[in-house]
Amino acid sequence: MAIWLDWSEADFEAKFAAFLTTKREVSEDVGQTVREIIADVRARGDAALTEYTLRFDQLDFAETPMRVTDEEIEDALAQVEPDVLDALHLAAARITKHHSRQMPKDDIYEDDIGVGLGSRWTAIEAVGLYVPGGSASYPSSVLMNALPAKVAGVPRVVMVVPAMRGKINPTVLAAARIAGVDEIYRIGGAQAVAALAYGTETISPVAKIVGPGNAYVAAAKREVFGTVGIDMIAGPSEVLAIADKDNDPDWIAADLLAQAEHDRAAQAILISDDAAFAKAVSDAVERQLRLLPRADTAAASWRDYGAVIIVPSLDKSVPLANRIAAEHLELAVADPDALMEGIRNAGAIFIGRHTPEVIGDYVGGSNHVLPTARSARFSSGLSVLEYVKRTSILRLGPDQLRALGPSAIALAKSEGLDAHARSVGIRLNLGS
Amino acid sequence: MAIWLDWSEADFEAKFAAFLTTKREVSEDVGQTVREIIADVRARGDAALTEYTLRFDQLDFAETPMRVTDEEIEDALAQVEPDVLDALHLAAARITKHHSRQMPKDDIYEDDIGVGLGSRWTAIEAVGLYVPGGSASYPSSVLMNALPAKVAGVPRVVMVVPAMRGKINPTVLAAARIAGVDEIYRIGGAQAVAALAYGTETISPVAKIVGPGNAYVAAAKREVFGTVGIDMIAGPSEVLAIADKDNDPDWIAADLLAQAEHDRAAQAILISDDAAFAKAVSDAVERQLRLLPRADTAAASWRDYGAVIIVPSLDKSVPLANRIAAEHLELAVADPDALMEGIRNAGAIFIGRHTPEVIGDYVGGSNHVLPTARSARFSSGLSVLEYVKRTSILRLGPDQLRALGPSAIALAKSEGLDAHARSVGIRLNLGS
Repeated sequence: MAIWLDWSEADFEAKFAAFLTTKREVSEDVGQTVREIIADVRARGDAALTEYTLRFDQLDFAETPMRVTDEEIEDALAQVEPDVLDALHLAAARITKHHSRQMPKDDIYEDDIGVGLGSRWTAIEAVGLYVPGGSASYPSSVLMNALPAKVAGVPRVVMVVPAMRGKINPTVLAAARIAGVDEIYRIGGAQAVAALAYGTETISPVAKIVGPGNAYVAAAKREVFGTVGIDMIAGPSEVLAIADKDNDPDWIAADLLAQAEHDRAAQAILISDDAAFAKAVSDAVERQLRLLPRADTAAASWRDYGAVIIVPSLDKSVPLANRIAAEHLELAVADPDALMEGIRNAGAIFIGRHTPEVIGDYVGGSNHVLPTARSARFSSGLSVLEYVKRTSILRLGPDQLRALGPSAIALAKSEGLDAHARSVGIRLNLGS
Repeated sequence: MAIWLDWSEADFEAKFAAFLTTKREVSEDVGQTVREIIADVRARGDAALTEYTLRFDQLDFAETPMRVTDEEIEDALAQVEPDVLDALHLAAARITKHHSRQMPKDDIYEDDIGVGLGSRWTAIEAVGLYVPGGSASYPSSVLMNALPAKVAGVPRVVMVVPAMRGKINPTVLAAARIAGVDEIYRIGGAQAVAALAYGTETISPVAKIVGPGNAYVAAAKREVFGTVGIDMIAGPSEVLAIADKDNDPDWIAADLLAQAEHDRAAQAILISDDAAFAKAVSDAVERQLRLLPRADTAAASWRDYGAVIIVPSLDKSVPLANRIAAEHLELAVADPDALMEGIRNAGAIFIGRHTPEVIGDYVGGSNHVLPTARSARFSSGLSVLEYVKRTSILRLGPDQLRALGPSAIALAKSEGLDAHARSVGIRLNLGS
């Protein structure tokens, strides 16, 4: 049974504040192990990769090549059920179309005194995509991470995926092919992150590493950050559903459980202005739980981190939603636009009764990689911007240097940076 | 004397590759101390802040208030030399104007099947700006960090600056006032970062912390990352000047020294197609060095990390520049546009003989916070984007759910996520 908080109770603010600070993750301290693996791969390259893969994944590169061949990918495509393959193609087309609109435009111009200024965007030259192995190996995540890189124009997208005894989920390979991934290697863990960052005889290094992974992968990404770029380190998933009494309680319960089944540390929250409706949802959750193959996971998530919050009126849900800053926010109310107006902090908003969050996980076209653990207060979901970078541009002629130079000299001198002042002054014949 | 590399020599590639991996920073391990300070400020708030400030900055909050008053800021403005004040105003106006063009636009639309999709940008609600104390306390950095936040619409910008015995550089206070900083506190180090992240009785917490600092500040920012957002951790500054023989060697030497005077770990690199010219620049560096107040710093930087690279023709400088991925790139050549075409990796490009990098430090209008240590391969300089975040939006009606739902169900089932499939299926009467 989830926690139940009621705005009308005297200690609501204290309880809500405590709820907000609940930690849902215990970070394993694997730093030392990870540093050793990285140093080893950096020093010995393929030889180290081969040893770690034999040890951790029971996979011998003397028998199975490290790089997945074109033939294997073709075989994988043939193994995927036609309806799943069609769905992957539909998702890929929609993701590509939506993300194409996100491409930032160069802006190069001359200002009123003739100074040339500008921003020029270029794609990162090579990106590594980490894909977890086993049951957390999601084809949809391959699309969501790889397609925006291709839309951005990244010429080389390299995927790594741990392959226990050589096996890779064929749907993952199909998704990689559909997304245009250029190279796929059967490696995982900190050793794969090290190979991407520093390169080996087989794998050329990349400039940025993205994608989810376990504690070792997350620690390895933190460790190589600086040598390469990394994306955000994603935490467990969460949904906040704001729902009025005119919803079918079963629909909302199903949405809460779709989050809860991800992970025992996932979080599902309901805010409603109607306690009877909220009780009906809560009952529906218990009922539907019994039907789920992943009931254990979903039940633990709902019991430990689930919450039902009762507000006196729906407008009161807005400040709470902004403090929760949920990864996923559903607005299942009669007038969602009225609420949306005031929402500042949310990874993604799903509007109305016919937009279950799950559509966004797969085929909506928007990205499902979103800020977790309240980080929507300061960060955004994955977009094309993750794969481009901006170079700023400045161009002065003699006239512009004469106009701006003296001010630069004044500021440089006030900061005690005489060589800065000289670099401008020498061009203006202001002595040296 | 800087290192001298010549493309025409047989071992050039090996020497250049080794040069690229030179580490210019030794990161002090201050993690344990920093974690203790943060935990203490988090637990004891103002009381802990007061103790650390007395110990580290010899400043007693019983005598001098933690928060800088309006009166003090007015006094500071009156103390600043008129030409410096004018220069600050000019810089602020130019920075504001340029950064206003960077504000991303919302994009909310309906696709061809009637799915509502979109990106909505909102400003971060509160940002903390760390300003170093002492000689590294640069008014220009206050403008460069604070103005884009104000352009983005951040309602609350909080500045912290360590004030040894209570003193703050009046020009820094003037810059803060001009930039529209809302609150200023006399605190520094890890304790200031902790106060911004977790709040104390006096200081409300912020959602993101930006700005440069020493090893303690950098470690504290890494430590609180997740609770709040942080900007990149800046390394020592660097410039790459690509210059042909038709430059005045003294001008280019002055530009190299403007970088070198920053820090013993700063780096200045010259690429030229003319060895005699490069020698003349190198001689001019030695000559000008003697004139500099910060000669020791500049000489150490030039000796330990400076480089002169000779290429057979200027087009050969482009691939080298892309591998160096300099924070600042000067193109002091007859046809800079020809070179610029091929440049992918650079924080900022300064075009032509009359655009010394120093103009960009102060009054160009572009930002001087730029990616260092080759990180221009995967990251960008500071812009308005640092202070906004994107919420993605999805809106389906019954028709769109019928169109997309079955594909979402197929993918959810293939990923073994039955509750995901149910959340869609239950709305389509596909059983539950």
